[in-house]
Amino acid sequence: QGSAEAGADKIATCVACHGEDGKATADIYPNLSGQSATYLESSLKAYRDGQRSGGMSAVMTPQATNLSDQDISDIAAYYSQQ
Amino acid sequence: QGSAEAGADKIATCVACHGEDGKATADIYPNLSGQSATYLESSLKAYRDGQRSGGMSAVMTPQATNLSDQDISDIAAYYSQQ
Repeated sequence: QGSAEAGADKIATCVACHGEDGKATADIYPNLSGQSATYLESSLKAYRDGQRSGGMSAVMTPQATNLSDQDISDIAAYYSQQ
Repeated sequence: QGSAEAGADKIATCVACHGEDGKATADIYPNLSGQSATYLESSLKAYRDGQRSGGMSAVMTPQATNLSDQDISDIAAYYSQQ
């Protein structure tokens, strides 16, 4: 189970592109606000597990590689509540 | 250049999961409303070009395979304006 409170302490690198409020800082990035935790977990794990190339994967895969399942649940909880 | 008006005629299959208004019909799907056309094009092309596995790719890749660059621009324009 993800904790949005714990997630808030794990988004230091995420915010550069996705903002603290889940609003993309440039058009090439997606907004995360309003997405479900289920979807956010699914896509973040797909990046981490090397299942996405192209698109923004050159940025996302190295970042996601360092995340545990719990980290991903926490970050997903945080952004789903923005 | 994408046309939202043309895109409105090309979303017959998209709406089942993403809604006519870009609101996901279930938690496993992302909302598309409010995303930039740039991002929507990038991710749809990544699915079409076989650069995404895992996640929802089993659903998305076969759908996206049938889309031309113009189709993708039009659909991206449509959903970015929802």
